[in-house]
Amino acid sequence: MVNIAVIGYGYWGPNLVRNFAATGGASVTVVCDQNQARLDEINKIYPAIRTCTSVDEVFGADDVEAVAIATPVTSHFDLALGALESGLHVLVEKPMTSTSDEAKKLIEVADAAGLTLMVDHTFVYTSAVRKIRELIDDGRLGKLHYFDSVRVNLGLFQSDVSVVWDLAVHDLSIMDHLLNRSPKSVSCTGVAHVAGQPENMAYITCMFDDDLIAHFHVNWLAPVKVRQTLICGSEQMIVYDDVDMSEKVKVYDKGIILDDDAKYQRHVGYRTGDMWAPRLDNVEALALEAQHFIECIETGATPLSDGHAGLRVIEILEAAAASMVNGGTPVSLPGNGSHR
Amino acid sequence: MVNIAVIGYGYWGPNLVRNFAATGGASVTVVCDQNQARLDEINKIYPAIRTCTSVDEVFGADDVEAVAIATPVTSHFDLALGALESGLHVLVEKPMTSTSDEAKKLIEVADAAGLTLMVDHTFVYTSAVRKIRELIDDGRLGKLHYFDSVRVNLGLFQSDVSVVWDLAVHDLSIMDHLLNRSPKSVSCTGVAHVAGQPENMAYITCMFDDDLIAHFHVNWLAPVKVRQTLICGSEQMIVYDDVDMSEKVKVYDKGIILDDDAKYQRHVGYRTGDMWAPRLDNVEALALEAQHFIECIETGATPLSDGHAGLRVIEILEAAAASMVNGGTPVSLPGNGSHR
Amino acid sequence: MVNIAVIGYGYWGPNLVRNFAATGGASVTVVCDQNQARLDEINKIYPAIRTCTSVDEVFGADDVEAVAIATPVTSHFDLALGALESGLHVLVEKPMTSTSDEAKKLIEVADAAGLTLMVDHTFVYTSAVRKIRELIDDGRLGKLHYFDSVRVNLGLFQSDVSVVWDLAVHDLSIMDHLLNRSPKSVSCTGVAHVAGQPENMAYITCMFDDDLIAHFHVNWLAPVKVRQTLICGSEQMIVYDDVDMSEKVKVYDKGIILDDDAKYQRHVGYRTGDMWAPRLDNVEALALEAQHFIECIETGATPLSDGHAGLRVIEILEAAAASMVNGGTPVSLPGNGSHR
Amino acid sequence: MVNIAVIGYGYWGPNLVRNFAATGGASVTVVCDQNQARLDEINKIYPAIRTCTSVDEVFGADDVEAVAIATPVTSHFDLALGALESGLHVLVEKPMTSTSDEAKKLIEVADAAGLTLMVDHTFVYTSAVRKIRELIDDGRLGKLHYFDSVRVNLGLFQSDVSVVWDLAVHDLSIMDHLLNRSPKSVSCTGVAHVAGQPENMAYITCMFDDDLIAHFHVNWLAPVKVRQTLICGSEQMIVYDDVDMSEKVKVYDKGIILDDDAKYQRHVGYRTGDMWAPRLDNVEALALEAQHFIECIETGATPLSDGHAGLRVIEILEAAAASMVNGGTPVSLPGNGSHR
Repeated sequence: MVNIAVIGYGYWGPNLVRNFAATGGASVTVVCDQNQARLDEINKIYPAIRTCTSVDEVFGADDVEAVAIATPVTSHFDLALGALESGLHVLVEKPMTSTSDEAKKLIEVADAAGLTLMVDHTFVYTSAVRKIRELIDDGRLGKLHYFDSVRVNLGLFQSDVSVVWDLAVHDLSIMDHLLNRSPKSVSCTGVAHVAGQPENMAYITCMFDDDLIAHFHVNWLAPVKVRQTLICGSEQMIVYDDVDMSEKVKVYDKGIILDDDAKYQRHVGYRTGDMWAPRLDNVEALALEAQHFIECIETGATPLSDGHAGLRVIEILEAAAASMVNGGTPVSLPGNGSHR
Repeated sequence: MVNIAVIGYGYWGPNLVRNFAATGGASVTVVCDQNQARLDEINKIYPAIRTCTSVDEVFGADDVEAVAIATPVTSHFDLALGALESGLHVLVEKPMTSTSDEAKKLIEVADAAGLTLMVDHTFVYTSAVRKIRELIDDGRLGKLHYFDSVRVNLGLFQSDVSVVWDLAVHDLSIMDHLLNRSPKSVSCTGVAHVAGQPENMAYITCMFDDDLIAHFHVNWLAPVKVRQTLICGSEQMIVYDDVDMSEKVKVYDKGIILDDDAKYQRHVGYRTGDMWAPRLDNVEALALEAQHFIECIETGATPLSDGHAGLRVIEILEAAAASMVNGGTPVSLPGNGSHR
Repeated sequence: MVNIAVIGYGYWGPNLVRNFAATGGASVTVVCDQNQARLDEINKIYPAIRTCTSVDEVFGADDVEAVAIATPVTSHFDLALGALESGLHVLVEKPMTSTSDEAKKLIEVADAAGLTLMVDHTFVYTSAVRKIRELIDDGRLGKLHYFDSVRVNLGLFQSDVSVVWDLAVHDLSIMDHLLNRSPKSVSCTGVAHVAGQPENMAYITCMFDDDLIAHFHVNWLAPVKVRQTLICGSEQMIVYDDVDMSEKVKVYDKGIILDDDAKYQRHVGYRTGDMWAPRLDNVEALALEAQHFIECIETGATPLSDGHAGLRVIEILEAAAASMVNGGTPVSLPGNGSHR
Repeated sequence: MVNIAVIGYGYWGPNLVRNFAATGGASVTVVCDQNQARLDEINKIYPAIRTCTSVDEVFGADDVEAVAIATPVTSHFDLALGALESGLHVLVEKPMTSTSDEAKKLIEVADAAGLTLMVDHTFVYTSAVRKIRELIDDGRLGKLHYFDSVRVNLGLFQSDVSVVWDLAVHDLSIMDHLLNRSPKSVSCTGVAHVAGQPENMAYITCMFDDDLIAHFHVNWLAPVKVRQTLICGSEQMIVYDDVDMSEKVKVYDKGIILDDDAKYQRHVGYRTGDMWAPRLDNVEALALEAQHFIECIETGATPLSDGHAGLRVIEILEAAAASMVNGGTPVSLPGNGSHR
């Protein structure tokens, strides 16, 4: 039985409490939030959970072995570091930290202490992304050509972080997980339509070796909600539409055919084929993720979304932010290969 | 009655012949193509039209006052120049020419000779784009925030021009017409997934003064056909979906509301409202365009899609191509204001 | 403050508890269910609510003024009658009772005792149906021509009632509310595809005076989920698609135009116009309904979905069931006019 | 080479001419229409085709072996009979005739003379219906449970025939082809919303042996165009959406599972699975049909849509019309089994 404390009980915290409470092998013992009103709320539902307004009561508690941190980004580093230094395993909301240096420091400390450090890249645990990962790993798509993602809606304008740190982090974590390699350059253009506020829309391009390209459109100011990702390979293509309730993942048997017999001019033919929408299971992503966190703590296994995955996403976000202030000038990255 | 010759009878030529034949005040007298088999085909349907394989027979003909050129891009300049120098009015396929210098030269020659020079930016004449233009000109959208366009499909891979010159030209001509101003910088990233072939997918960003941004995704290698443009203003937003047969243009009464009373931190509120899909007329764009060309010839009026519009589009295409070979580094443009 | 007891804590009961608990002026004092395990569950969340397994403890309680009944249909009559006879106001799940005689009896008893009797026709309180009601009452649709409803999905096969009593009850309650009149005949065809089970799909037709027709397709065995209603008038038509998250209600400005000048043969022309999707509010239907029930109790007002509405729906269900066993032979009904 | 005459050059005639002209082994020698203006039009396009205004010139011509009749329904019988009696093979538009007696007479005369009699049930030759037929014949769907079809739009109000004869004929011909058996009863309700005009909307139910049911909604007065057919079997279900350009046919691996082990109450479980949209070929239905007609003439083979198929559809139309005037009272039919 792993005893968990949840730090931060705003938008996401209640989901963490609910899922860890339902996970076999886990027990939520403490919830910490600076806002006493929120804590009162939790006690009505879970009278057995202890609440507190200071993290010191968490870090020093006898009945806490791990923390799940769901506070604003700027506090992630201090809280996660404090927890690790108190010998606690850590699950931290995305984005992992505000800077890559902070992310590296957390990885270092966790490694030295032999503690589990995991980032809450929730989408990685959805049935849709798991199915796509399976198709890619099976080689069904062939050579990967591009990853194109659109995540737009008339949503919550945030005044502390830009749309890149707020929305693109989702898609970058999905990309990192599925493509299993890192871009060698990142360019980004974005605009703030409200004076004094962070950018509310942005376009990010990631270039990889081997003619693989990834692109992201993130936007808080759109008339319609779109959550669509195209993942195109030489053999098959996937449309992942997270808004489609019945057919989230569609696999198209379409591609280019090269006519190599043509002597003087390369002729490009076309092939169109069947479409197939695989059945997806109904497991809630966060339930699976909570269980995975517990298992990693107990077995010492490396989480699917470990600190390194969190760091890689932060590095792309930093590069994108740097490119954006330079009007889209590309920023180079190491661009290494397989992470696994 | 304006006598027209159509040069090039491949994919688009038959549409020009059919529409000019049906236009009051116009008569198609000659069709010219290097391929005799195609000419034989036309004679079966239009026995009264004269055919020839050499443009000299067009430029020297007594019964030709104007030409419509529907040949590959590389031949546009020579054919249009030849026609203008023979005293003929010119309608030329998009993109107008292969370079901006060529486009400038054609404008110069047409102006000096007092001849009509028009580019076949067909989308400008569609009922959807005309309705959107009307809404923008009425000030319904408020201050323009962004123009976002996606044009992707598993289409015809061309080996002579890249997807930018083939597909983006459509969207750039629509943008030029609707926004009525020019970008001050252009960046573009693209990839060729078939060795030795031109780029088959690309992303273009145009930055304007006043925080207006435009973005284009063009792609020959996609599993699904998408033709969607978002045009967002401070008051209203438009979704223009050219694949939607019944509701191509949707106007959303959504926007941000700023709470100016907030003292220390600007609070951004939200407003959502009705959606409205205006009725569009059923006039074929090319029929309207053919008639417009005839009217401009007869009255000396400036076409909606004149040589300058054609040139502006070419300038963006050139900048995009230059940025693309530099991995997306932005290219500056003059970025002037209203064209009208 | 009205003290409420909820009887039945299966699928729907928890929603009733949650909404009445959140309604100003109401308090949930008791929850009754035969299944002790369910009652244990509720105590974890709402420790202040008393639970019991016998309705006698509800009917005889000092702190109960009204009951909300969410048990299987067959028990509705006995429970509602018992409550009314104990002087309690009643909100009962749809369908109100198993027979129209039972429904009449409940109305009679409630009237005699001056108690509020309301049926939980939830859809009547949704923002979509309230908006459509407003449009119809404003005369926007003109003369009503038809009401066509499809409610199909691969859902829960029930073994106690047919798909007509399970699904059509929703659409009949919407129709009763919107059309404000009753059919003069009902025909119904349906099939049971599993031996020994009730009908799992059915088609119902209601004929009204004045060439108004209503039709319902209800089906437990379909590959896709459809919840679409067309409401057509002489001036405007409505598409109500309950599965569409962003535009549930669309109003089309289309209709027939009669050319009355034609002498010998009546010529029917066509008109197509704009489409308009009005903004709908986000109020949860059950929250509004709970509040309405409390207000009716306190003021003595007649509920929107009163016992008579419940009875009218039962009468159509009975007629449909009778027609279905006769292979679709129409069954006559009184077909009276306005209910309001 | 089979010489064909096309009788009737209104809406459909030009399609017949175009397709027979393009069919190897066929030649269109004569086109007949009472309207000289239409004939003038054809001569501009096909100068080699002879035209006439009297069918006598067709029936007596030396260079005509077969006729394709595309005139109003009321004239089908006389024209087809005249052609057969002149020794000509006949392809006739749907519905085949105005009455089943007429249809029987044509079959009799054609059989006696050894001539090919074929009805233009075009949908039977589409790639979508051919693919569905293949899936059904392969037994992929299991035992057939229902056929549900919706064909509605704001279309052309006809003053000579009701919507049943105009629209339902399409769906009945598809059903006849796919189900390969005939209903044992037909009921139909419909309404005419314009005084003095035929019914503009109708619902038809066909009951078959073995709990198979078919239902049709046909409507000229709808705000949106719908062409959707559900074909449900015990193993798989098909959604055929003729308006969907990219995925017309979707096959769902969903069904009911019966838990036969349950002792006292039969428990019905559920199964959901993959969806699959097979690739469809791009052959034009009418091209395939024209070729099939020629082949049947040359080989003496029975057409897929022979006179008996035409007759079966007429019999259902007659039954539906009879039921409709009786307010939906079911009409019995022989309900025989396999037609093939």
